[in-house]
Amino acid sequence: MNTNSSNMMALAPNTSNKRETVCIFGTGDFGRALGHKMIQCGYPVVYGSRSTQISNMIPKDAEVLSHAEAAQKAAIIIIAIQRQHYNFLTPLAEILRGKVLVDISNNLKLNQYPESNAEYLAQLLPGARVVKGFNTVSAWALQSGALDASRQVFVCGDDMEAKQMVMNIVRALGLTPLDQGSLLAAQEIENYPLQLFPMWKFPVFLSLGLTAFFFFYCLVLDVIYTYVYEKQDFSFFIAITIPNQVCPVMALTLLGLVYLPGVLAAIIQLYRGTKYSRFPDWLDKWMLCRKQLGLIALAFASLHAVFTLVGPIRSFVRWRTSQGIISQALNNKTEPLDTTSAWLSDSYLALGILGFFFFVLVGITSLPSVSNSVNWREFRFVQSKLGYLTLILCTAHTLVYGGNWFLNPLAYKWYLPNIYMLGLVVPCTVLVVKFVLIFPCVDKPLTQIRQGWERNPKHSE
Amino acid sequence: MNTNSSNMMALAPNTSNKRETVCIFGTGDFGRALGHKMIQCGYPVVYGSRSTQISNMIPKDAEVLSHAEAAQKAAIIIIAIQRQHYNFLTPLAEILRGKVLVDISNNLKLNQYPESNAEYLAQLLPGARVVKGFNTVSAWALQSGALDASRQVFVCGDDMEAKQMVMNIVRALGLTPLDQGSLLAAQEIENYPLQLFPMWKFPVFLSLGLTAFFFFYCLVLDVIYTYVYEKQDFSFFIAITIPNQVCPVMALTLLGLVYLPGVLAAIIQLYRGTKYSRFPDWLDKWMLCRKQLGLIALAFASLHAVFTLVGPIRSFVRWRTSQGIISQALNNKTEPLDTTSAWLSDSYLALGILGFFFFVLVGITSLPSVSNSVNWREFRFVQSKLGYLTLILCTAHTLVYGGNWFLNPLAYKWYLPNIYMLGLVVPCTVLVVKFVLIFPCVDKPLTQIRQGWERNPKHSE
Amino acid sequence: MNTNSSNMMALAPNTSNKRETVCIFGTGDFGRALGHKMIQCGYPVVYGSRSTQISNMIPKDAEVLSHAEAAQKAAIIIIAIQRQHYNFLTPLAEILRGKVLVDISNNLKLNQYPESNAEYLAQLLPGARVVKGFNTVSAWALQSGALDASRQVFVCGDDMEAKQMVMNIVRALGLTPLDQGSLLAAQEIENYPLQLFPMWKFPVFLSLGLTAFFFFYCLVLDVIYTYVYEKQDFSFFIAITIPNQVCPVMALTLLGLVYLPGVLAAIIQLYRGTKYSRFPDWLDKWMLCRKQLGLIALAFASLHAVFTLVGPIRSFVRWRTSQGIISQALNNKTEPLDTTSAWLSDSYLALGILGFFFFVLVGITSLPSVSNSVNWREFRFVQSKLGYLTLILCTAHTLVYGGNWFLNPLAYKWYLPNIYMLGLVVPCTVLVVKFVLIFPCVDKPLTQIRQGWERNPKHSE
Repeated sequence: MNTNSSNMMALAPNTSNKRETVCIFGTGDFGRALGHKMIQCGYPVVYGSRSTQISNMIPKDAEVLSHAEAAQKAAIIIIAIQRQHYNFLTPLAEILRGKVLVDISNNLKLNQYPESNAEYLAQLLPGARVVKGFNTVSAWALQSGALDASRQVFVCGDDMEAKQMVMNIVRALGLTPLDQGSLLAAQEIENYPLQLFPMWKFPVFLSLGLTAFFFFYCLVLDVIYTYVYEKQDFSFFIAITIPNQVCPVMALTLLGLVYLPGVLAAIIQLYRGTKYSRFPDWLDKWMLCRKQLGLIALAFASLHAVFTLVGPIRSFVRWRTSQGIISQALNNKTEPLDTTSAWLSDSYLALGILGFFFFVLVGITSLPSVSNSVNWREFRFVQSKLGYLTLILCTAHTLVYGGNWFLNPLAYKWYLPNIYMLGLVVPCTVLVVKFVLIFPCVDKPLTQIRQGWERNPKHSE
Repeated sequence: MNTNSSNMMALAPNTSNKRETVCIFGTGDFGRALGHKMIQCGYPVVYGSRSTQISNMIPKDAEVLSHAEAAQKAAIIIIAIQRQHYNFLTPLAEILRGKVLVDISNNLKLNQYPESNAEYLAQLLPGARVVKGFNTVSAWALQSGALDASRQVFVCGDDMEAKQMVMNIVRALGLTPLDQGSLLAAQEIENYPLQLFPMWKFPVFLSLGLTAFFFFYCLVLDVIYTYVYEKQDFSFFIAITIPNQVCPVMALTLLGLVYLPGVLAAIIQLYRGTKYSRFPDWLDKWMLCRKQLGLIALAFASLHAVFTLVGPIRSFVRWRTSQGIISQALNNKTEPLDTTSAWLSDSYLALGILGFFFFVLVGITSLPSVSNSVNWREFRFVQSKLGYLTLILCTAHTLVYGGNWFLNPLAYKWYLPNIYMLGLVVPCTVLVVKFVLIFPCVDKPLTQIRQGWERNPKHSE
Repeated sequence: MNTNSSNMMALAPNTSNKRETVCIFGTGDFGRALGHKMIQCGYPVVYGSRSTQISNMIPKDAEVLSHAEAAQKAAIIIIAIQRQHYNFLTPLAEILRGKVLVDISNNLKLNQYPESNAEYLAQLLPGARVVKGFNTVSAWALQSGALDASRQVFVCGDDMEAKQMVMNIVRALGLTPLDQGSLLAAQEIENYPLQLFPMWKFPVFLSLGLTAFFFFYCLVLDVIYTYVYEKQDFSFFIAITIPNQVCPVMALTLLGLVYLPGVLAAIIQLYRGTKYSRFPDWLDKWMLCRKQLGLIALAFASLHAVFTLVGPIRSFVRWRTSQGIISQALNNKTEPLDTTSAWLSDSYLALGILGFFFFVLVGITSLPSVSNSVNWREFRFVQSKLGYLTLILCTAHTLVYGGNWFLNPLAYKWYLPNIYMLGLVVPCTVLVVKFVLIFPCVDKPLTQIRQGWERNPKHSE
């Protein structure tokens, strides 16, 4: 042991000196934050700056030199300046030849320039080895160490060795580099941090719109109608009763909208007799946001579940229950068990529970880590088979809940159908069409078309 | 800025031409889908085909040439033909020398051939650089853009550079390449898309079998017995009451079955005095599906929780409650609070809630992304310590629920024990044996054996 | 087909012989487990050992030779011996020159030595190509095949080619290699398996302490006070009633503690007029465990939700409800619906449900796989915007629940405030300060500071 320890002591300083010097061009906010972090992780840092005077802003242990001097001290140069000023680098082309230039810039809006900043840099300095990276990390996160979301650093570049050097630095800073291939990927990497849930925009706005519509529909039928005709103030229905009518209807409608485009696509393919002509644009976009629609439907279903379970705790429900019992007790009569209503009540609850259970299962397989660990066949099994099972169970849940209420004229206040009847429109349409599509005489040609067969190969294209 | 813009304009066409030409052999469904996608992503595509006439089927912007001509135009050739026809490539061996051949084929069943298609291709054309890839992606998903499950493209090959070239294309198509090492991995990659939840088969069938058994057991005791002896129709118990007896029993039994093999393994190791002899096959298989058994148990526990919470909303329960209250009111008497039953009721509910809470915690750590972010020590802590805590709490929940019902002769209809007593058999066995194994006189030799010590080193092996 | 089959037969043995021989130094537990697994996966294994006699311990198909002989047979040597004995390798330096040495060692405690074992090995044998790996895998998991947690093998090393060779073996064993860069990463890799939820320690202990305090506070007010003044035994409140008071208070307090450090940091930055001076240590540490605090708060909120929903099933609650109804029935009076209490009850329930809903949403985005698939902007949106929305909704839920109870002297048993008032302290403080910080006159300088502006640039540093 003793021999080892003395050995280690001798070797230790050697070890800590191993990190290669990194040069940073630009002393802006991100340049300083990155420099701070690199010094913390043991990298000697040298700044390249027009003026070497503003030394109190940049990290204590960093050197500040002119651009040319700084570039000569390091093999890796981080370009922490804005794209508009890239052309000042052209005079340095000779010094930068063979150096690894790391482009960390971001734009202010999507696809601001025809080519990415990194490709532009590579064109300005053809002798340098340009690598894109670090642009998805925030200066604040680097400085505070709160790197939860931005652990992943996308890196791309045409020079493998240069990319490896940058990826080593990324790892040394405690981040996870993700190789995105050649410099052509830079455009996408630069667009990435500018996005705010782009796939969610349409589904969210659609849901908000539909929710508002159904909410006012219920408000009119349950609160205003009662107030006008029965002079009763049920305004507190706004808090739970109405949301608990809107949520299931939204869940069912959105779940139907998830499976509707698939059904439409099948009809279009059957009609056209080929799968090689493109779908209309709106259908393509609709198909791409099915996952989001499904997850929002699941959120509404969950809210519906909790709103329902919370029922017996509500002051209003407890009052109504006790009124019912007291009136029975005062009339000195006890009602016998109504087996039919017990059957109805239990089966619609059971259908709802099972439907929600499978819905949650399908939702769990939408988690990135789960869907990544299943293959295509398994994913289709869950999303298609279990998904349709969910749709069937939830539709049945609503139908049984309605019972024979459909035929009752009392269900049509102001000649308007009850809201749950509206909620059944989309899912029932989907299920009926899907049922037709399963028939062998329809399914067989559809399967052939999907395997590449064409009815009129001459006319297609 | 102006200088830059003009610069960019001059350079832009240059950029978009950067993608290297890709050749595709075969104009089948997948070959066409892949070609379409590649053209979309900016790759010039040339098809190699026996007949150059069927041009209306393949993408508009692609060229169609003979195999030899097409191969000469590109460094990367995608072999979109079936394994049976690979031998027609042998005459082209000279042209294909040094080219990157991408084998994208799949088989119809697991381990159909003694070696993988990619290895077979490499043996046919020793001069070519064969890379396996793209076989996990579906043609439909490529065309529709719905690439949720199949984002990951497994790639393997013996030539690093060739693999990098293919991985760059994968990335350019918006997919995630996963390097699986040398071409030896091709067999596994080819088997991957043929699987349908192989680890889940046994647990699912076991659960279905047990569920059916418990369901009929309950049906006999709760519905048929009542109908025969009390002439009452409780058939609606099928919807909620019986499922809510089957689910907890299934959850408890399956949770016990998760920990039973570990206990059996310890007994076998103690008996044999070594850890170096293999367990019986059934035990090995059992141990490998513990995670699946546990997750199914969690599903049953969740259903039990919801079925229980839904209770007060059920028509039958509301009827029963009001009957109880009315009969008290009519008899003009109020019962005082029974503290013992309050204690029993509250504590079995609390035990159940806590047990379910820890069960969900253990379930969350089974998510791939969570279990990947903990180390081995942490994973064992959660799965073993928290798992046993869950088992203890859930068993206690059932025991307290039973209360002193065990001793009541009314609990044994037709001399059969109530179902929750059956559910206690497996977990109680596990807990008793585990309790014995914790004793120092048993734990010490077991720990030694697990660290590699052997009782009779001479006789083993 | 026939030609192919005969071809395959001739080529098959060639294929299975492809794996290169691997040498293992050391016949301890892990060396043997790794050897077993490698032989299973088709690698010829040769052991290097001081004594070649103990052959009954090691796998049947492995060869055992002296260290020097064994090393000469393979290009990759796995060093399965402890760091203390590394110096016996120095005499073999010449034979090991150019070989790939895989350091798989672990230490007994964090940062036991000044440099990592792998770096120490590389210093002892400068001619060898040292790769760190396999240390995160457990011998037991390797042998049993239960590799759930330890699928990931961190690999690092200075020689790219050597690293690739080791990563290929890792993949062949069915594990996932993760390249961690140069050998400098070895220290961290060696520390990794020794950790037991290091980030969770402080939040868990804080929660346990606070929970104990609140529990006894409730015990005194609800059980002991009632027993002393009303001679009633409500000891069964310990099971559900008191936990259901402690859980929401804990959830609310911890959720407040998640957002308190951000507010404190803003105040400090405003006061100092710069973001470039470091925060006090306690604040830094606090900020780094916000995610953990938030998840524990979510756990308490979930327990609160279940404890509340379980209410109507409790024996005590059912007794209390029926007493209320019976006394009304016996007095022959029916109470009219109290719209105000219906409003209060429904709105505090609705606020709680919405708050919990958003809380769960924020929790889901904390899952590693979800937070990895969002960018920094999206993550901040969810964690900050949705997080504050959750805090506002939950605080409002508690305030409405309290109603005008604050002003009621009965709420102050023994002059102590009710527990939910204590729970409001932290979240209300955070919300009030945050509200002030949003004012333009405060927000504007804060934003400037966070973008790098400094009030007194001369005096800073």
